[in-house]
Amino acid sequence: MNKKIKETIQKITSINFELVEKAQKRLDNLTKPQGSLGRLEDFACQIVGISGNLNPEIKRKVILVMAGDHGVAQEKVSVFPQEVTFQMVYNFIRGGAGINVLARHIGADVLVVDMGVAKDFASEKGLIIKKIAYGTKNISQGPAMSRDEAERAIIAGIEVFEDELNRKGIDIVGLGEMGIANTTPSSSIVACLTKSKVEEVTGQGTGINEDQLKNKIRVIKQAIEINHPDPEDGLDVLSKIGGFEIGGLVGCILAAAAHRVPIVIDGFISCASALIAIKLAPLVKDYIFASHNSVEKGQIIALKYMDKVPMFDLGMRLGEGTGAALGISFIEAGVKILTQMATFTDAGVENKKV
Amino acid sequence: MNKKIKETIQKITSINFELVEKAQKRLDNLTKPQGSLGRLEDFACQIVGISGNLNPEIKRKVILVMAGDHGVAQEKVSVFPQEVTFQMVYNFIRGGAGINVLARHIGADVLVVDMGVAKDFASEKGLIIKKIAYGTKNISQGPAMSRDEAERAIIAGIEVFEDELNRKGIDIVGLGEMGIANTTPSSSIVACLTKSKVEEVTGQGTGINEDQLKNKIRVIKQAIEINHPDPEDGLDVLSKIGGFEIGGLVGCILAAAAHRVPIVIDGFISCASALIAIKLAPLVKDYIFASHNSVEKGQIIALKYMDKVPMFDLGMRLGEGTGAALGISFIEAGVKILTQMATFTDAGVENKKV
Repeated sequence: MNKKIKETIQKITSINFELVEKAQKRLDNLTKPQGSLGRLEDFACQIVGISGNLNPEIKRKVILVMAGDHGVAQEKVSVFPQEVTFQMVYNFIRGGAGINVLARHIGADVLVVDMGVAKDFASEKGLIIKKIAYGTKNISQGPAMSRDEAERAIIAGIEVFEDELNRKGIDIVGLGEMGIANTTPSSSIVACLTKSKVEEVTGQGTGINEDQLKNKIRVIKQAIEINHPDPEDGLDVLSKIGGFEIGGLVGCILAAAAHRVPIVIDGFISCASALIAIKLAPLVKDYIFASHNSVEKGQIIALKYMDKVPMFDLGMRLGEGTGAALGISFIEAGVKILTQMATFTDAGVENKKV
Repeated sequence: MNKKIKETIQKITSINFELVEKAQKRLDNLTKPQGSLGRLEDFACQIVGISGNLNPEIKRKVILVMAGDHGVAQEKVSVFPQEVTFQMVYNFIRGGAGINVLARHIGADVLVVDMGVAKDFASEKGLIIKKIAYGTKNISQGPAMSRDEAERAIIAGIEVFEDELNRKGIDIVGLGEMGIANTTPSSSIVACLTKSKVEEVTGQGTGINEDQLKNKIRVIKQAIEINHPDPEDGLDVLSKIGGFEIGGLVGCILAAAAHRVPIVIDGFISCASALIAIKLAPLVKDYIFASHNSVEKGQIIALKYMDKVPMFDLGMRLGEGTGAALGISFIEAGVKILTQMATFTDAGVENKKV
């Protein structure tokens, strides 16, 4: 494996469970019945354990939106033409997309990365170019990319994260993506890694009908059959049935965990990326927060596989990091509870039971 | 019925469904697959229908925290002593409670109202005094309050809302409360109005054990038996088995709907208040948003009874408006999607299917 990836993985250590316990003790002294803020308290504890700081503050929030195209789009697995990936990247840069609105709402910055869009961009302010190739190859005919390209995608993700970390700091990162047809590789990855039936983890993406869904399932089965991805080798899975934006997200997850920065996954595609990252480095699991359960039916299976319970289910299925943005706001709420609420002693409130 | 209450109820009209449809049409032209932002889109539509404005903006957010004591506390239905209601009101005013932290997080102001706390406050900046009495009477022995007091509690809620509306404007209101033992009247109200078994709608409040729960169920059954509240008469229910803070919230709900301001309910106590308000004025239902499902088991029954689906369930059971605050942030997110996202035409993104 590439040296940069190996070094990043080696940097990842367990979160600090001793501090998690201390955080819970402090929460138990705040002016509320013990445990009455439920999972908000858990979020705060996990942030303490990740950051190694008993007084964490989430200042700089970043949503990383990684874009890539997919050769398998030619199998008519999506209702939108491939061109839309390219067009939506401009929409992200100009601030008009769903994720731009929700990122502003929670006070986060959006970074947009071209990991492998099928067309070239004129140099655009606010776009990071890490193009590995002009889209993956059609996974129903052979591997999406070479093993070298898979490593380069992961390295690009690490670099994007570390460059931004060094430049402005990152206290929490939300994972977003854009890539027409990318629920197809994601279902392939989730089926392979969780050893689920393809039918159980394949949904209607941006809105295909029942016949198109049958075709999509057939395409995914063929992709797994033809490529024989090894479920014990994350890099093999990524290269054979993955995508460039998925590889970029894997790199971002590894880098964030290596630098003790919490990661918030969004919908199905970032879930698939997280499964690969966990396969490469099991300790990253504790650095990850699940935000929402999307409409895409395989997501809850992927989340369960990594022992994550989503924070909410609003019937969303847009991707881009939209669910992650709202999840970040919940996590921040939990952290503020820990650091800003008064204790029973401070407030002169009785903590005695009747 | 008192003239002020009657007039407020008469002002309440249906929300504007024509505008709701227009809002959905606009959402369908934004750069995302149709319906892909799920319930965020519904929230935006409902706000449009309530406000009568196709370009709504949620500027001033208010959390109303109404406090009151309960004579039934002497039946040992709570683990905390009654004194805590009084102490927590000071905590709210000083900004140290959970709701203060979460209100700041979402950019909302907190208004604290003494509706019937058992002790007198020294005049305190930031506290609105509308004390109806020094706590209700013990509902397991007789009515909580007189019918006149119930009306006065509702009127006080209307006044608090209207005073603040006139003073600074309110674009959305979240309902919070504080009152040791107030899940007991709330369970009584929910059992009575939804015609559920007491066992099904009675939970462990701030943390009573199984034996204490049995006692609480017995107390509630006795309260309903001894008082015979008429489930067709919201005022009768409030006066016989309610509370002063519950009456205040009822008034606030009625006033908000009369002024076309959206209302976000929190946990079990504000749910019980909403049931009474809907009984008095069925049209208020469409002005109400359910935020979370709390741990208190009767809440989901109360929500179903009013056709509401909670936005999230984080295992919270604090009250004070803490869940409502997070819910407001979701609603605001939906509104911003409607008003800030680019259309397909604006962004030059193809909306044609393959």
